[in-house]
Amino acid sequence: MNAAQAISGWLAIVGLGPGDAALVTPEVSAALAEASDVVGYIPYVARVAPREGLVLHSSDNRVELDRAALALELASQGRRVVVVSSGDPGVFAMAAAMFEALEAGPAHWRDLDIRVLPGITAMLAASARAGAPLGHDFCAINLSDNLKPWPLIEKRLRLAAEADFAMAFYNPRSKARPEGFARVLEVLREACGDDRPILFARAVSTLDENLTVASLGEARPEMADMRTMVIVGSSHTRIIERAERPILYTPRFVPEAVS
Amino acid sequence: MNAAQAISGWLAIVGLGPGDAALVTPEVSAALAEASDVVGYIPYVARVAPREGLVLHSSDNRVELDRAALALELASQGRRVVVVSSGDPGVFAMAAAMFEALEAGPAHWRDLDIRVLPGITAMLAASARAGAPLGHDFCAINLSDNLKPWPLIEKRLRLAAEADFAMAFYNPRSKARPEGFARVLEVLREACGDDRPILFARAVSTLDENLTVASLGEARPEMADMRTMVIVGSSHTRIIERAERPILYTPRFVPEAVS
Repeated sequence: MNAAQAISGWLAIVGLGPGDAALVTPEVSAALAEASDVVGYIPYVARVAPREGLVLHSSDNRVELDRAALALELASQGRRVVVVSSGDPGVFAMAAAMFEALEAGPAHWRDLDIRVLPGITAMLAASARAGAPLGHDFCAINLSDNLKPWPLIEKRLRLAAEADFAMAFYNPRSKARPEGFARVLEVLREACGDDRPILFARAVSTLDENLTVASLGEARPEMADMRTMVIVGSSHTRIIERAERPILYTPRFVPEAVS
Repeated sequence: MNAAQAISGWLAIVGLGPGDAALVTPEVSAALAEASDVVGYIPYVARVAPREGLVLHSSDNRVELDRAALALELASQGRRVVVVSSGDPGVFAMAAAMFEALEAGPAHWRDLDIRVLPGITAMLAASARAGAPLGHDFCAINLSDNLKPWPLIEKRLRLAAEADFAMAFYNPRSKARPEGFARVLEVLREACGDDRPILFARAVSTLDENLTVASLGEARPEMADMRTMVIVGSSHTRIIERAERPILYTPRFVPEAVS
């Protein structure tokens, strides 16, 4: 590596959106067009079209810090590196892992040209498809307990229900811990009642897309898998019945008496 | 209107992203290219390039339901109507207002071809520019009290702090009620302490973009205006100092002892 190469290197941490190429921003497409290297989890790298001169570095799940260090090292060698995530890179995706690696790594990594390029995150794609269930105050919770203790998840569920947020849940049900989501539904039924609407939005914007609107009383753990975004309405969320799938939305207005 | 015209009409409720054209999804650009009518708040309609055969319907703020009814009526007359919002249409924008109007309106509106097309919402653009402050569980709160009682805002702030969410605040400071945001900062200092990092991200992705990272103790109400996205970190949010602007990020991991 010489100085000129090092100066020309950069790192873009990008979001590919939920799946449909029409949901990839032009900013992200431009970064991919200029890249020398693409780094990411196997199924996300598979969404990048191969071309002459572009090196694809795919790796398995749960090696985020190794992947981050590889990307930082390539950029510091003068490569033009794009780290790909599904959805938005800043929402339960690679951006946080990249900065964990950056903070723990050699000082010269901090001088790199690093950009985060936003993407359409799964909860917004799912919300759009269903109507506007996140149209008022809401929260986003990762239900995977790989990275945090289970009691913290339950605490956040109960406080979010007390705050009357609509709630968007990422990674609702893992193969390793399928019982976790059953417990989530129990906690939600206790805190929000059986009538509260819940949306299961699987693989939105892909050929496997499937949406189901149910009540918490009707909801079953097996309605979700790891490709499903789950959204629970606030106490004000409404359903508009139609000949087609119903519309789920949360009005902008909370009347004075409800506070 | 004849039946064929009515059948050909459609309504797309779209998000234009935070400002930069490179953040408008191809899906939204395609809808605009096919539209006969664009409906929206004046500054957002101004972002759509005029062309032969495209009718632009601009209206002032706070007439969302009138605007929604106009769009629904045009679509039911067979027009190809795009309703534009900044950011994402489902996050404190036009989608909820559209469905409020739809639910209250004539039954035949429910048969319309209505799609919501997601966009890059301000909090994700701001988060990307700053690093990854929303990299763990978070909430989004609209601080405007036009549409909800003030005590509900304070209640949600306190519960969000107790849940240790990172928090993204839309519409932090209106000209009509500037004292509200001063009170928000007081509540946050009480609940989170003076050292908690706070991001003021103004007009992200536009020529007026300006980012400031401070602590809650340093934060002043006048650091925000209605074009500012405010993000407050969780108790785990970290700052990486660099020669350039620091990076703000929230790690993916919460240690067992913290629950």
